[in-house]
Amino acid sequence: MTQASEFIVQSWVNTTESPTLQDLRGRVVLIKAFQMLCPSCVSLALPQAQEVHRTFSQDDVVVLGLHTVFEHHATQGSRAALEAFVHEYRFTFPVAIDAPSETGPIPRTMAAYEMQGTPTTILIDRSGKLRLHQFGLERDLALGARIASLLGEPATLAEQPATSLGAATGCKVQPPAS
Amino acid sequence: MTQASEFIVQSWVNTTESPTLQDLRGRVVLIKAFQMLCPSCVSLALPQAQEVHRTFSQDDVVVLGLHTVFEHHATQGSRAALEAFVHEYRFTFPVAIDAPSETGPIPRTMAAYEMQGTPTTILIDRSGKLRLHQFGLERDLALGARIASLLGEPATLAEQPATSLGAATGCKVQPPAS
Amino acid sequence: MTQASEFIVQSWVNTTESPTLQDLRGRVVLIKAFQMLCPSCVSLALPQAQEVHRTFSQDDVVVLGLHTVFEHHATQGSRAALEAFVHEYRFTFPVAIDAPSETGPIPRTMAAYEMQGTPTTILIDRSGKLRLHQFGLERDLALGARIASLLGEPATLAEQPATSLGAATGCKVQPPAS
Amino acid sequence: MTQASEFIVQSWVNTTESPTLQDLRGRVVLIKAFQMLCPSCVSLALPQAQEVHRTFSQDDVVVLGLHTVFEHHATQGSRAALEAFVHEYRFTFPVAIDAPSETGPIPRTMAAYEMQGTPTTILIDRSGKLRLHQFGLERDLALGARIASLLGEPATLAEQPATSLGAATGCKVQPPAS
Repeated sequence: MTQASEFIVQSWVNTTESPTLQDLRGRVVLIKAFQMLCPSCVSLALPQAQEVHRTFSQDDVVVLGLHTVFEHHATQGSRAALEAFVHEYRFTFPVAIDAPSETGPIPRTMAAYEMQGTPTTILIDRSGKLRLHQFGLERDLALGARIASLLGEPATLAEQPATSLGAATGCKVQPPAS
Repeated sequence: MTQASEFIVQSWVNTTESPTLQDLRGRVVLIKAFQMLCPSCVSLALPQAQEVHRTFSQDDVVVLGLHTVFEHHATQGSRAALEAFVHEYRFTFPVAIDAPSETGPIPRTMAAYEMQGTPTTILIDRSGKLRLHQFGLERDLALGARIASLLGEPATLAEQPATSLGAATGCKVQPPAS
Repeated sequence: MTQASEFIVQSWVNTTESPTLQDLRGRVVLIKAFQMLCPSCVSLALPQAQEVHRTFSQDDVVVLGLHTVFEHHATQGSRAALEAFVHEYRFTFPVAIDAPSETGPIPRTMAAYEMQGTPTTILIDRSGKLRLHQFGLERDLALGARIASLLGEPATLAEQPATSLGAATGCKVQPPAS
Repeated sequence: MTQASEFIVQSWVNTTESPTLQDLRGRVVLIKAFQMLCPSCVSLALPQAQEVHRTFSQDDVVVLGLHTVFEHHATQGSRAALEAFVHEYRFTFPVAIDAPSETGPIPRTMAAYEMQGTPTTILIDRSGKLRLHQFGLERDLALGARIASLLGEPATLAEQPATSLGAATGCKVQPPAS
């Protein structure tokens, strides 16, 4: 099991916060990567995400959409389009806009996870480890079981070095230039 | 029964032609007014239109979409957005973009028909008369029966004056300026 | 087009009458052959029959079930079992019990029509002619269109001898005994 | 939490064994009480049971049907009818026939559990305790989560006295009469 890569997000819809995986440590995180013009995302994957969102307490399970636009950028790529879409479909979980790449059509989080397309389902455990990475859809019964199974696991914080927080936010001596 | 109002169209997607109701006289015409961000349009009304399109011969029944954007104009209003939507959802019938109004959010054909919203179903008989104007959806069985019933009717061309075609394409003496 | 074979019926459920095809001449008749233990009959074919039953006037279209038990005779074969089934599923159209054969498992109407199994859909026009004989299911839209198309046809009564009605209900001079 | 009542079973279909709750201790048990003529049992509850049966290992989760006939006894009550039903619908989990009562229409396990009707869902934990008793249906996602949550619990055997097995099968010194 590998640690899940942090999101690289342009901005958020449906939340005034900017959650990071680091912030969500201790909870199970379900991420649905989608595009608003992907039919099976709209009819199946996002309704399933909404169902997870209403079934579990947000203290236990955090559901996040991730808008990974890799085609029709001009059409799908605007924040206003996504806001209108999320509003009309009554999706109430936070949705991140994946940061565009400067070098190609695949946005940055999508590239970091090497996703094959949309919809993609990502499950991250209480300890921040990647536990499911699946192109396409899983049946509701199995997904519910998988999430509850992760909920039953304690957050193992042992592997995280004492200075991990400092690594990002603190001061660190740089190796001397040779 | 009243004669159906002619479309007022900005442009067409999925066709290189610009059909008018006048051109389609003699055939039954099904029009589905929709918005690409209207959930029941996407999941129910447009698939039903596609089903009609594949069930009947186009010599008998012409299926047309009508994109009547009356909210989220910035997002839904571009031709590129509609083209991407129609492409991703594999809708193959011609789609008209309703001409925007200069005075309000309701586009012009939608206003002329006094539609209540989307989806709206319009059925026009072989003689160009409005036979169904329905906000929302009808079940497939009843819609199939309704279309076939109209197919069974002859096109009554009597009301059409002999010069009607000429009115559009011919040469006509203008009334003298007073 | 051949004349549709008359039913050979053991008894009827959901009606106190014993309709014959001859009686129904002038109307379109939809027959759904089924077995109460056939899953696609229960979940798809009979609900479609009920939908036809509620969509059209019974003056125009008569919907009949035909219980063609060709397996599990001990279980499905009783009138009481069929009555309980029809009651619990709220099917309200008349259902005929196909007359059992004395020589094999296939009941007599099913054999006369050479049905391949259940569900089978039969459509008979106003003149009593067989117009559709289909193993499996048709989509609602196409079935609605097909029925309405038959409704648009006049009943051709030419083949029916002038005395046919009298044969059943009128007074007739009997040939003298020789 | 109360200990779940043992089944009172007439006979079993789809198994050559006669499992008791006592035998299944250590595993999670899902019971779907149904009648073969109950439409929502047939279309929703039993397919959900089959889905649970194929999703989890039988070492972890045991799915059992319970045919609780409380109406239409003459029709639904025969073992042959149930066998034909289970065969035609391709349900592969064991099904118990609830033992008929000698005094009324409600069979004995159904009465012991005070079920309100069919379908009823019963969940029993690894320790044999009743954890869910629900008339009607739960959505797949929540049921999957509920089962997995019970799977995460150890079987607590503490409440079971050391001689419990002996109570049934062994030899025990009787207390002397005073």
